[in-house]
Amino acid sequence: MAKKFSVADYLISPNISDKALFGNVLGIDHNREEVSMEVIEEKPLTIYLNSQEVVTAMTIGDHPEYLAIGFLYNQRMLSQEDELTSVEFDPELDVVVVRTLRHTDFEKKLKKRTRTSGCAVGTVFGDILEGLDQISLKGSKLRTSWMYELSNKINRTDSLYLKVGAIHGTVLCYKSKPMCYMEDVGRHNAVDKISGWMISENIRPDDKILYTTGRLTSEMVIKTANMGIPILISRSGFTVWGVELAKKLNMTLIGRMKGKRFCCLSGGHRLIFDTV
Amino acid sequence: MAKKFSVADYLISPNISDKALFGNVLGIDHNREEVSMEVIEEKPLTIYLNSQEVVTAMTIGDHPEYLAIGFLYNQRMLSQEDELTSVEFDPELDVVVVRTLRHTDFEKKLKKRTRTSGCAVGTVFGDILEGLDQISLKGSKLRTSWMYELSNKINRTDSLYLKVGAIHGTVLCYKSKPMCYMEDVGRHNAVDKISGWMISENIRPDDKILYTTGRLTSEMVIKTANMGIPILISRSGFTVWGVELAKKLNMTLIGRMKGKRFCCLSGGHRLIFDTV
Repeated sequence: MAKKFSVADYLISPNISDKALFGNVLGIDHNREEVSMEVIEEKPLTIYLNSQEVVTAMTIGDHPEYLAIGFLYNQRMLSQEDELTSVEFDPELDVVVVRTLRHTDFEKKLKKRTRTSGCAVGTVFGDILEGLDQISLKGSKLRTSWMYELSNKINRTDSLYLKVGAIHGTVLCYKSKPMCYMEDVGRHNAVDKISGWMISENIRPDDKILYTTGRLTSEMVIKTANMGIPILISRSGFTVWGVELAKKLNMTLIGRMKGKRFCCLSGGHRLIFDTV
Repeated sequence: MAKKFSVADYLISPNISDKALFGNVLGIDHNREEVSMEVIEEKPLTIYLNSQEVVTAMTIGDHPEYLAIGFLYNQRMLSQEDELTSVEFDPELDVVVVRTLRHTDFEKKLKKRTRTSGCAVGTVFGDILEGLDQISLKGSKLRTSWMYELSNKINRTDSLYLKVGAIHGTVLCYKSKPMCYMEDVGRHNAVDKISGWMISENIRPDDKILYTTGRLTSEMVIKTANMGIPILISRSGFTVWGVELAKKLNMTLIGRMKGKRFCCLSGGHRLIFDTV
């Protein structure tokens, strides 16, 4: 068996020995025999921005602060100008409260809109699409050797996916080096946790690569663009709109990446084929 | 090759010849060759309840009316007491408006809550969990012969999944017979479309089986319980909370169903092993 890629090689990666992340489930199999399995946990986490309840996300529960910060930035409820004064997680209530120095635009906007149209979900999504016009990713070269090395390292990393399954993973990478590996029941949560970590650690996005196990839908492309990352790679499939958005945003988009096979959907002229 | 299970055997099933559901995408593969692929479409659909904008969902775009009705019922924004006066889809604006005879409780509740806490998303989710106490599914027997037959028929059905991939499927079944097959980019949309169809066609839920390709998370179990369906089967994995909720709700839950293998997580005493 191939040697595992060590978790020590990451700045942050899944803590597969954290027993709060999975539990034991008993079942009966097709042979009518009792089976016992380790299965991923899932719990609600309610995110507040100052005094405003924003959303209840279903999450595996690690890194609630990163999830909250990343979610709020990726939904454009926070911007780079907002100074975070505190991020508090209450494990009894499953609540994270993100506080900012000044009141955020989001609250004003939300209050105004709720008076006319009620619920903010659609509105918020509308805002995200509007904001995309202001994003311009500068093209960044991508070597096939990096892709193969990343895929190989990530697949050999001890993860909750390998341990218990039914989970999505997202990895922030620099060239051929995976840096930050997050997992969650929803692929969007894993991306939001990466985003929260980047903001907290002040990591520049424009020379990075985002790798995900999930499909390349419009939501994934939009989140990645909001984070300022110019390259998005997935081992899964993609949608027409995901591809169209990536082209519009000047993002390099790679789908169906498995072993030494892949399909480049956008930014193909920036690929360097340096492997045989 | 095994004979396809005919779509004519379903009351409603994916229309794989509907060219609005997929598009052509050009890419470059690992051999630096141009490749052309058919890929699933994805577009925004904004759902209104009377004058209230509720959500913008990303969907493949078929059956927008069923999606809207099912979403509103599954989010408990509509109840059995609400009489629908019209459901109008505007293909130019990608908007569905669902109208009811009287103002729905949801609007009052939302207006009250938005004044104090702003956004309804978390609140709405909270309401769903509360409502679960009132649901009691009456146990319903499940034969292994039905499961094997269903799995076999569903896998052989002409679907968007077989045609272009990157999509989830959900099938409403009666005993060994698949009745209604819906697909979408999000597994929750596929379930909501089934729900909208059942409400529109006045289909009783308590003798049915819901089959899904997606994972059995809390959200899937809650939706299925809200729909009144006592049996949920998936070919994918599950979370601890999904299993706990199924037990609490007296639901029969089957995961990792592949060929003649499966794992029963809840309601095992209602299984009838009538196959060898």
